[in-house]
Amino acid sequence: MKLEKLVGERFRERPSDCIIDSHALMLRGGYMKNVANGIFSSYMPLKRITKKIEQILREEMDSIDGQEVQFPVVMPASLWQESGRYESIGKEMVRFNDRGGSPLVLGMTHEEAAVELVRDYGQSYTKYPFMVYQIQTKFRDEARPRAGLIRVREFTMKDAYSFHTNQEDLEKYYEKCHKAYEKIYKRVGLPQVISVASDSGMMGGNLSHEFMLLTPVGEDSIAICTECDYRANMEAAECIVSCHRDSISEKLTLVYTPDIHTIKEVCDYLHCDIKTSCKAVVYQRNSDDSYVVLFIRGDLEVNETKLTNYLGCDIHPAIITEECGLKTGYIGPVDLKGDFTVLFDRSLEGANNLSCGANRCEYHYTGLDMQRDIKDAEYHDFAKIQEGGICPHCLKPSITVSRGIEVGNIFQLGTKYTKSMNMTYTNSNGETKYPVMGCYGIGVGRLAAAICEAHHDDYGPIWPISVAPWHIHLCAVRCDDSEVKAYADKLYDDLRNSGIEVIYDDRRVSAGVMFSDADLLGVPFRVIVSPRNIKQGKVEIISRDKSFSASPSMDFAKDEILKILANEKRNLSL
Amino acid sequence: MKLEKLVGERFRERPSDCIIDSHALMLRGGYMKNVANGIFSSYMPLKRITKKIEQILREEMDSIDGQEVQFPVVMPASLWQESGRYESIGKEMVRFNDRGGSPLVLGMTHEEAAVELVRDYGQSYTKYPFMVYQIQTKFRDEARPRAGLIRVREFTMKDAYSFHTNQEDLEKYYEKCHKAYEKIYKRVGLPQVISVASDSGMMGGNLSHEFMLLTPVGEDSIAICTECDYRANMEAAECIVSCHRDSISEKLTLVYTPDIHTIKEVCDYLHCDIKTSCKAVVYQRNSDDSYVVLFIRGDLEVNETKLTNYLGCDIHPAIITEECGLKTGYIGPVDLKGDFTVLFDRSLEGANNLSCGANRCEYHYTGLDMQRDIKDAEYHDFAKIQEGGICPHCLKPSITVSRGIEVGNIFQLGTKYTKSMNMTYTNSNGETKYPVMGCYGIGVGRLAAAICEAHHDDYGPIWPISVAPWHIHLCAVRCDDSEVKAYADKLYDDLRNSGIEVIYDDRRVSAGVMFSDADLLGVPFRVIVSPRNIKQGKVEIISRDKSFSASPSMDFAKDEILKILANEKRNLSL
Repeated sequence: MKLEKLVGERFRERPSDCIIDSHALMLRGGYMKNVANGIFSSYMPLKRITKKIEQILREEMDSIDGQEVQFPVVMPASLWQESGRYESIGKEMVRFNDRGGSPLVLGMTHEEAAVELVRDYGQSYTKYPFMVYQIQTKFRDEARPRAGLIRVREFTMKDAYSFHTNQEDLEKYYEKCHKAYEKIYKRVGLPQVISVASDSGMMGGNLSHEFMLLTPVGEDSIAICTECDYRANMEAAECIVSCHRDSISEKLTLVYTPDIHTIKEVCDYLHCDIKTSCKAVVYQRNSDDSYVVLFIRGDLEVNETKLTNYLGCDIHPAIITEECGLKTGYIGPVDLKGDFTVLFDRSLEGANNLSCGANRCEYHYTGLDMQRDIKDAEYHDFAKIQEGGICPHCLKPSITVSRGIEVGNIFQLGTKYTKSMNMTYTNSNGETKYPVMGCYGIGVGRLAAAICEAHHDDYGPIWPISVAPWHIHLCAVRCDDSEVKAYADKLYDDLRNSGIEVIYDDRRVSAGVMFSDADLLGVPFRVIVSPRNIKQGKVEIISRDKSFSASPSMDFAKDEILKILANEKRNLSL
Repeated sequence: MKLEKLVGERFRERPSDCIIDSHALMLRGGYMKNVANGIFSSYMPLKRITKKIEQILREEMDSIDGQEVQFPVVMPASLWQESGRYESIGKEMVRFNDRGGSPLVLGMTHEEAAVELVRDYGQSYTKYPFMVYQIQTKFRDEARPRAGLIRVREFTMKDAYSFHTNQEDLEKYYEKCHKAYEKIYKRVGLPQVISVASDSGMMGGNLSHEFMLLTPVGEDSIAICTECDYRANMEAAECIVSCHRDSISEKLTLVYTPDIHTIKEVCDYLHCDIKTSCKAVVYQRNSDDSYVVLFIRGDLEVNETKLTNYLGCDIHPAIITEECGLKTGYIGPVDLKGDFTVLFDRSLEGANNLSCGANRCEYHYTGLDMQRDIKDAEYHDFAKIQEGGICPHCLKPSITVSRGIEVGNIFQLGTKYTKSMNMTYTNSNGETKYPVMGCYGIGVGRLAAAICEAHHDDYGPIWPISVAPWHIHLCAVRCDDSEVKAYADKLYDDLRNSGIEVIYDDRRVSAGVMFSDADLLGVPFRVIVSPRNIKQGKVEIISRDKSFSASPSMDFAKDEILKILANEKRNLSL
C-alpha cells in the first residue's frame, strides 16, 4: 500500500474534545471519523487492526471448541419478551416497529438469540456441552458515549454462549474460557490485563469476571488487595466495616442546629467525628418515582449498583419536594413517617452514640443507638469499598483502588435464560432439565483503543506487531533521487513478495512530514532509504518504540527485516 | 470438526413454505434458522461459506485498489437529509429516534456515509481516484421477504464506492470493477453469471448493470437478444415498436358498445386487431393520489419502472371512483376532461384507425388518428419489452425473456451525491469541481443461495471447493470396528495437519444416515473408511457430484486426497 493513496487525514493538533490519548491519536492518525454521537466510521488502518484482533479472537474461540455462527442485528421483540428483558432493560435498547407494525429491537447482546438458535438442537444430554460465538455489530443507546472507542453506541463484539448440563461442567468451561481470554490479551500485546470479580448487571447469573487494563484514564474503579489476590470491580466489591460500639449509650437528645445542612457542618457543630454520624441518602425508583431512604455511616458512600441489585429496579437521586414529607438536611431514622422504603447499611449495625437528622427543620439528634432506637432495622451491604478499606477476602485493611478499562467479561448465567425461554433437555434418566449457560464477551473496538492506551507516546500509537495495520513502514526519503527511488521500489516489491505487509511512503515530502505520519500510523518497524544511507550502502531499520535499531547493508536488508519480524512475532505468540 | 458436535439440525422433509430449493436445502441441512420474517441466524456451515465468499470479495476488491473501511449500521437522519433520500426512500428504510430524540436510520446502502467519510480527504485532485469498500450488515424493510436468503430484510453486503475527477476515469474504473466481478463469480463457481443493463432505481445515476444468474426460479426478468449481445433487465429494456399507419385515415366514429369492458371484448365486438386499439391504464401517485392516465397500444403492457422514473415518484394502480371523472372501461384520449396527468406510449405515435374509449359509458370510438385527433401528444417509452420483441440494439425481432437472480450490481452515479452533499475538490487549474462516483454491491447471503441454486441435487447442495464449508467429509462407517476407528482417526489428524478442512463423522449410525447427512452438507469430496474398504487395504474417495471416484490404498490416501484437492482448487482459480 502506498501511503500517498491511503484515504484519511492525518493532523498535528489534538482535538479539544478528546479526554483520552487513544481517542485523540486515532482521530489525528486517520483511523476513524465521527459520524454521530458514539457512532464512528473506520478508515483502512483501523479496519486492518480490528480484522487482526477478530482473527485472534476467532482462533482462540475455535481452540476451546467454539463454533462461529451469526445472530441477527435486528430481532423480534417477542424473543426479548420471552426472557423478560424487553421490559427490564431501559432506554439503552433501541425499539422500533417494522412497516407492518411488528415490534423489533436492535441487538445489544444475544443471549436470547443464542437460546433460540440451539433450543431445538439441544434436546438430549448427548449434545452437551457446546459453545457458539459470533463477531458482530451491536447497538446500545448509551446516555453518555465518550472517550472515542471506549464507550460508543455502535460497536463490534465477539460474544460467545456455552451450554452445559450442570453447573460443574459450566465452571470447568468458564475456567477454560478464562485461560483463552488470558491468551487473547497476551497475543494482542496486553499481558498486563487482570481479571476481577464483577457485578452481573442486566445479564443476571451468579458469578462473573471482568478483564481490566489498569490505567488512570479508565472509567471503572477496581478494588485490589495488596495482601492477597482479591480483585473486584468497585460495583461488586463487598464493603467490610468494623462497627464501633461505645460501652455506654448516651440518651437520644434533640439538638437545635440552625442553618446547618451538610453532614460535615453537623459534625463540626456537634464536635463529633463524621464516623459517628448516621447519614441519609435518598433515591427515587425510575418506574414510579417512589422514595427510597438509605441510612449509612457518615464517612461512607453509597454503591448504587448494590442498591439497584437489592431493589431489583433502576433508581435516580431523589428530587425532594415539600409534599413528600422529607426534610432535606434533617432526615433521620427516628420517627421517620411517610410512604418510603427505608434501608440500613451494615456500617450502622450495632452502632451507638450517633448523630442524625430529627425529621424536623433545624434539629438533629445526638445519642442515637441503632439497637435501642431502631428496633426492626435490617442491615445490608450498600456501601462503596474505599482506599485503605478492609479486604473481604483476607480481612486486612489493604484495599487500594485503581482505575481500569474493561476489555472483556465472562458470566456464569445459570438457568436464567433457559428457564425463562423454556429450553430443556432430557438427561440420561429420561428427566427434563434446564441447561446452564455461560456467556463471554470482548468488544473489538474498545480492545483496539485499550491497546493504543497501553502502547503510545506523544507522537502516535505503537502497535504490537500482532495487530499492527502493517508490519513495515518503508520511507523513501528524497524520492526525487533516482537511486533512492529505484532501491526503495525494489525493496517494497521484495518485501511484499515475501508476504510482508508494507506501507510505502514515496511522496516528495520532507523527512519530517514522513516521520510524523509514520509515528501516527504506529507501524512497529520503520525502514529508511535515503541518499545518505545509500551512499553508505546501508538501510536503516528503527522500531517505532525506539528500543531497537539496525543498519544492515542494502543487499541483506530484506533478509534482516524478515528475521526481525519473525523474532517480534515469536515474542507475542504463546 | 466432528460432525457429532456440529450444532444444528438436519432433516429429510422439505419445509412446505419453501418455494426454492436453496431455501429448503439450507433449512434441511442446518445452515440457518428463521428468527423473524426475512431475518435469519446462521449456523456454522453457512457462516464458513459466507466467510469464504467474503474473503474472495476482499481479495478482488483489494486487487482493484479498494481500501476496506467500515461505515456504521446506524446513521443520523441528517446524512440522508443532505442527499434528499431521507424523504425519497419509502418504508424500506427503518427510521427511529434515539433516547435523546435524535432521528436515526438503519443503513440499507452507504453512499451518504461514503461521501461523509471522504469529503474532507478528497479536496484536491491529486487524491483521486480512490475506492473504499466494506462488508457489513444492512437492513431493508422489504414488504415481502421470500425465497430464503434471496430476499431478506437483514443481510450482509459488500458495498464499494469509487471517486473520480471525471466521467471518463469513472468509466475506466467501472470496467475494471466489471472484470473483478466476473472473476468473483468464476471463483465462487458461477462462471455462467451474465451482466445486464439495469434500471438505477433509488441509487440514481445514468448507467448501471446487474449481474444475473439465469434460473427459472429467479425473481427478475431479463431480456436477451439471440442475435447480438444485448441483455437488459426487463425494467430497463427499451421497447421498440414498429408503428403501423394505414394510408387512408377513417373518420372518428362514435360506436355504441353495450356491456363491453375488456380490451379484448371491445376488439372482438369491433372485429379489429388488438394491435389497432388504444388502451388506457390508470395509476395514482402515492404522495397525493392524483391520477395518471397512460395510453398504450392494446397488445402491450406498461413497464411501471419506466413510468415511475418518468414521473419521479412512486405510483400504484388507480382506484377509480365515481367522482374522479374517469369512466372505467371507456377511457379514451379524445376530449378527456379532468385534472389528470395524461401520457402516451411510443407505440401509439403516428398510428391511425385505432379504437379507443369515448369517455362516455357504453361508447367507444373507431377511426382514431393520433396525429389528427390528439395534436399535442408527446410520446415516451413506457412499454414492457416482450418475448419475440425487437432488440433495441440490432433491431431484429429476436428478444427472449429469461428469469434470473440478481447477484450483484454496479452503478455509475455521476455527481448525484457529491452535489447534493456538497463534496468538492480543486482541480489543477484551481477550479472547484464535484467528484463523480461509482458504487458496486454484492450481497453475500444471496450469492451463497445462488451458488446453492446452481449447484445442488435432490439430496443437498454441491458446494464448489472455493466456498465449501469443509474440503473433505470423512465417514468412518462402522466406527465400532476398532480398525476402522483407528485408521479414520489417524487420517483425520493427518489431513488436518496438512491444512485440510475436514468434517469427521465418527458417529455410531448407519451408513445411510451418514451419507444423507453428508449429502446435506455438500462437501465436495467424501472419504469413506469402512470394514470392507479396510479389508481391501483401500479408502474410497467420491466427489459429491458423483463425477469422480478413486480408491487409493490406505497408505497413500492422504497424498491422493491432497492431490485431488489441489487439482480442484486450480480449476476454480484464475
